[in-house]
Amino acid sequence: MSDVSTLVEQARAGQARAVARLISLVEDDSPELRSVAGLLAPLAGRARVLGLTGPPGVGKSTSTSMLVSAFRARDLRVGVLAIDPSSPFSGGALLGDRIRMHSHTVDAGVFIRSMATRGALGGLATATPQAVRVLDAAGFDVVLVETVGVGQSEVDIVALADTTVVLLAPGMGDGIQAAKAGILEVADVFVVNKADRDGADQTVRDLRHALSLGRRESGPSWRPPIVRTVATTGAGADDLLTALDGHHEWLATHGELEARRIRRAASEIEAIAVASLRARLGGVNGGEALAGLAKRVAAGETDPYTAADQLTGGV
Amino acid sequence: MSDVSTLVEQARAGQARAVARLISLVEDDSPELRSVAGLLAPLAGRARVLGLTGPPGVGKSTSTSMLVSAFRARDLRVGVLAIDPSSPFSGGALLGDRIRMHSHTVDAGVFIRSMATRGALGGLATATPQAVRVLDAAGFDVVLVETVGVGQSEVDIVALADTTVVLLAPGMGDGIQAAKAGILEVADVFVVNKADRDGADQTVRDLRHALSLGRRESGPSWRPPIVRTVATTGAGADDLLTALDGHHEWLATHGELEARRIRRAASEIEAIAVASLRARLGGVNGGEALAGLAKRVAAGETDPYTAADQLTGGV
Repeated sequence: MSDVSTLVEQARAGQARAVARLISLVEDDSPELRSVAGLLAPLAGRARVLGLTGPPGVGKSTSTSMLVSAFRARDLRVGVLAIDPSSPFSGGALLGDRIRMHSHTVDAGVFIRSMATRGALGGLATATPQAVRVLDAAGFDVVLVETVGVGQSEVDIVALADTTVVLLAPGMGDGIQAAKAGILEVADVFVVNKADRDGADQTVRDLRHALSLGRRESGPSWRPPIVRTVATTGAGADDLLTALDGHHEWLATHGELEARRIRRAASEIEAIAVASLRARLGGVNGGEALAGLAKRVAAGETDPYTAADQLTGGV
Repeated sequence: MSDVSTLVEQARAGQARAVARLISLVEDDSPELRSVAGLLAPLAGRARVLGLTGPPGVGKSTSTSMLVSAFRARDLRVGVLAIDPSSPFSGGALLGDRIRMHSHTVDAGVFIRSMATRGALGGLATATPQAVRVLDAAGFDVVLVETVGVGQSEVDIVALADTTVVLLAPGMGDGIQAAKAGILEVADVFVVNKADRDGADQTVRDLRHALSLGRRESGPSWRPPIVRTVATTGAGADDLLTALDGHHEWLATHGELEARRIRRAASEIEAIAVASLRARLGGVNGGEALAGLAKRVAAGETDPYTAADQLTGGV
């Protein structure tokens, strides 16, 4: 316990190593986590949490790097969590992009960490918000959560941010059409990256058209702005910061910042509760109950619903 | 209840409409589902369940279509479930591909259904195996589960099959390198589709190299064969069927078919149990408990682990 509180103190004093160790506790779902969480709770709640997502190839990592530079120019400390859902198919770009971000790693005001699931169901859904808490409590002014994945669950993760940035690039018009409903739902700010390429105007037009069709039904309405950037050169970084500030201010004045953070807390609690119930299920009669029921279901002697009832009856 | 048993009878008699209604009950998580599941249990367990996955653009739907034709030529009835995880980014190809598959929809020996989540967490993980059960019990000889998604959760879904086919195409060598661990884990049979294109030999070599590095650690060893196909022309269909038959026979002779089906049943039971526990959590004090705890966590008055303990204490 005293060990853990030393770690939290060191993290707050700016020691990257202590921050890294705390995040490892989160990833490993360590038993010490509960003590850590209790210590972090009163310290968190100050950071701006930004989510960054988009299809493969739009330049997410270079955009993250550009944003880090822009926030550093304001003298803000930035923590970056790069979520890698360990997908067999979507993890390809990770290594190369991480290397490109190395220019920031010697800066003590920047902390960068890749997170991957360790195979546990709901692993990232539980771990990511706790890692955000670590960075928040450690005093980072901005926490940037970037996902390299493209599945719904990864989108859900970044959508837990105060502000969610969806990146697109020219030449993905069909994708926008097909996917507009999903994109409209999660995006607070759109970025059309690689805006120096042919087709950027068309992408902006397509997006504007899609936005004009869909309207959010709940809450006061915010019209997501569309910002053009060339992340490799840093062009458009100021416009993007202005858009992010604009959304942050809007959230604050409409009581939405508080509302979002409560929603985020609710989903954190639920994810932890479900994980702990799941662990209890596996432990019913030392796992014998599930194994026996699975055999009976596979043999057609009972159905999975009846089996599930019997299993949860033991929780 | 009698309504439901009529539906099951009609489905077994080959009425596509009844099959479709049963799958809708699954998708909607209808209360009638429990009666249906009880009726289906003794009827299921005969079908061969095949999973098909791969990155976008490799030709999954045309490959599915090719396989359907090949099984039909053997006079086998084929049910197809196309899993659309409703990802904002990965759903693009669905509509066009479905239209291409229309040639099969007038054939009474073929049933094709797209499945999407309705926003419920774990929705497809719960619904897909139940839809497989419906098709199995309705007497389809082969059930083909194809996913258009690329996330881990979608891969997990198809990996529940007896045989999992991973599709690749030339020009994706980098992806193979980066992702080889994940691919090696789930694939029983590899298909290099678009094998008439430049780079097909290189893709096969890359794959063979990746396979030589990774070795499965558990269970008797099966060496996944690599089959070349051109799904648009049907070239390679016979080789693919031979590979699928080979794996099926291997499963049967090594007791793995039974083992896989028991594992599948266990994960079905667990998914249903977790969903029902989750529903109970939401219902604790009419949801008031979670809302109140979320506010306290957002305010830094308590941490999410302590809150989760309090919540599950009420289950």
